[in-house]
Formats: sequence, C-alpha cells, structure tokens
Amino acid sequence: MKISARNVFKGTVTSVVAGPVNAEVVLSLPGGDSLVAVVTQGSVVDLGLAPGVAAMAVVKAPWVIVAAGEGGPRFSARNQLQGTVSAVKPGAVNADVVITLPGGSAIHAVVTQVAVTELGLAPGAKAKAIIKASHVVLAV
Amino acid sequence: MKISARNVFKGTVTSVVAGPVNAEVVLSLPGGDSLVAVVTQGSVVDLGLAPGVAAMAVVKAPWVIVAAGEGGPRFSARNQLQGTVSAVKPGAVNADVVITLPGGSAIHAVVTQVAVTELGLAPGAKAKAIIKASHVVLAV
Amino acid sequence: MKISARNVFKGTVTSVVAGPVNAEVVLSLPGGDSLVAVVTQGSVVDLGLAPGVAAMAVVKAPWVIVAAGEGGPRFSARNQLQGTVSAVKPGAVNADVVITLPGGSAIHAVVTQVAVTELGLAPGAKAKAIIKASHVVLAV
Repeated sequence: MKISARNVFKGTVTSVVAGPVNAEVVLSLPGGDSLVAVVTQGSVVDLGLAPGVAAMAVVKAPWVIVAAGEGGPRFSARNQLQGTVSAVKPGAVNADVVITLPGGSAIHAVVTQVAVTELGLAPGAKAKAIIKASHVVLAV
Repeated sequence: MKISARNVFKGTVTSVVAGPVNAEVVLSLPGGDSLVAVVTQGSVVDLGLAPGVAAMAVVKAPWVIVAAGEGGPRFSARNQLQGTVSAVKPGAVNADVVITLPGGSAIHAVVTQVAVTELGLAPGAKAKAIIKASHVVLAV
Repeated sequence: MKISARNVFKGTVTSVVAGPVNAEVVLSLPGGDSLVAVVTQGSVVDLGLAPGVAAMAVVKAPWVIVAAGEGGPRFSARNQLQGTVSAVKPGAVNADVVITLPGGSAIHAVVTQVAVTELGLAPGAKAKAIIKASHVVLAV
C-alpha cells in the first residue's frame, strides 16, 4: 500500500463495539501498543472487522496532538500514547515530531515550531501522542 | 459562500441513516460521484437534511488522504474516491494535489512532498482520495 | 498542561447526551460562548464528564474552518462561532487567523493564504469559526 499518511500501523483487531451508526474498534500492535478507531458500522461489515482480523490503522501526522511530559490532565481522546521523542525535523512553520512508544511503534505528529519550543520537544523528552478515535482510518 | 476550505461540493441528499447521537448522510454530486458525511443528529434536524434536499459538502484539503494507483487495500473511510491526478502544486514541505473524479468533481488534498515522491503523484497518475465521513461538514 | 494544540478553552460541562458509542458534550466558556464535543461514551465515564464538571476543550488550529461575514449558509458542524478577526499572521502557504468571540474567547485557525485573500480576512472583519464536534478533544 502506497499512501500519503505518515502513520500506518499493522496490527490485529481485538474488539469491536457496535452502535447504530458508528463502531469502536481496538487494534493491537505487535509490540503491545494498541489503537482505538471509531468507524462507521457499515465499514465494520464491509471490511469484515472482527476479533482476530489483521488490519492497518492509518493516521495523518497533522491529526496528532502532542502533550509534553508524563501524567498531567486526562483527555477524552481514546488514544493517549505515552512515549519518548525520538526525532524532531524542523520546518519554517511546522515540525515533524516522532514519538516512539514502549512497544516500538513510532508516531509522526506535525505541530507548530512554537509548540516544539514551548513543550521542549527534543530527542529523549517524554511526550504523549493524542489521537481521537474518529481520526483513525482502518484498512484491510 | 466564502469559506476557507478548498473543497466545496454541491449536491443532493439521497439518504439519511439516523442514530441517537450521529447520523450518516449521503450526498450525490451532479456528475454521478457521491460523498458520505457523518454529522450529529441535531444537525440533521436543524438543517432539515432529508432525501431530495440540496446541500454542500465542505472538506479541508489536509483531511484528505491520498492512496496511489487503483485497487489495493480496502479502507474503513466511507469516501474512497478513485480518480486521476490532474494537478500537483509543490511547496516546501507540503503539496496541493488535485484528483479529478470520473463525474468531474475535483478534490484538493494537502500531503507532504515526501508522499508526492513516494507515491509518484503527477498529472495522469491514478489515485484515490480517502476522506472519513466524520471529516465532512454539510451546509445548506 | 503543555500541549501542541493552539486552542485550549477552559469551561464547565453543561450537558451530556449519551449514545451507545458516542456522546455529545456541551462546554460553557466563561464569557458566555460554548463549545460542543462528540467523544466516546467510554471517555464520558472515564473522565466523569457530567453537568457542573470543569473541563478543557482542545482543538488544533488546522481543524478550524473559517467562513467570511455573518449569516450565510447553515452548517452541520455543531460549532459555528461568529466573531471578529483580531489578528492574521501570514506565512508562505498558510496563515494563522485569530477570531475573537463576543464572550472574549479567541480561536486560532490555520487556513491557506489563498483563503485569507479570497475571504478578505483582516483585523476587524466579521468571520465565523466552524469546528466539527467530533474534532474537539476534552480534558479534565
């Protein structure tokens, strides 16, 4: 698959909670990390999403919010992935920040350069990648 | 309407599936293309969205994912619009890629320059615009 | 809280409408403005979101759509915040536009420079910030 999104995570579906319009799908990644996606119930049926099915989660880097440090406030976003900054590629206005999770998955986030400075985002810093479940696309 | 979003599609509502919080609305575009939006049930009532109603779909270009080629994996996103790249406007970090659909609708996607190279996005190339239904705003 | 998102609004939850997967939460801001968020029902329980609870709404600036003027079409987005442009910070491709609401809240939107010109966005101009409820993250 060749796709423009910077984040593509391969994993296995471990749970599906269905609603009349949307469904919440949990994908477990190889290293022990996991991602939650909210997709339409129509997609669950079309793609045959069920526990045990191999799937990929796709997230564009500008859809990822970064919070500095550990702990702090709790967020409504289903995906609050605590990790360590492993790379920062600066740009004129935005920067590409990579956060590596304990299980080895790496998440790209595009944030402003102002945020990089304010949050002290540099390799080795603790940081959290926050992704709303409704911003995750699944592929099979 | 003057609006900052690069993508505004005029069409007609052809179906509404209601849930307690959200609803799935299908909009048919003049050339035969169609778009699916997930909006709140409150909006369906406020805007009077029902089959036959004229409406516009609004999508910011950075919310569009581009997949190269035809076929390939299937995605949970309700909108997987197969077309042909008709223009690529490069930038320092990002590029504005235009994909024209069979029915004539043109979709702007903002993706990274890295993706443009990796996916071989150039005029004439086959590509798919992927848009989550929850990223589509409707207007009447 | 140190977070990469440009928009963080402190307020009080005034209503929660629950569904099987998602819930709609209304947050009232101090100056009388309010924001609607759609979050998962799991988050409502985990964060203890209920009327009277203090919470923050978090929105990345690139997720905000700007419409020029007043009135005009009606949108499905639950958040259509009419205000006045108070600042425009131009960039090479994108601009950071600040819209101040009647209650005093200021909303940052990242839009293209093309849109800034087309919409006549300059300090003093009337404008509307449009934010889908499903793009609002809540924090406690």
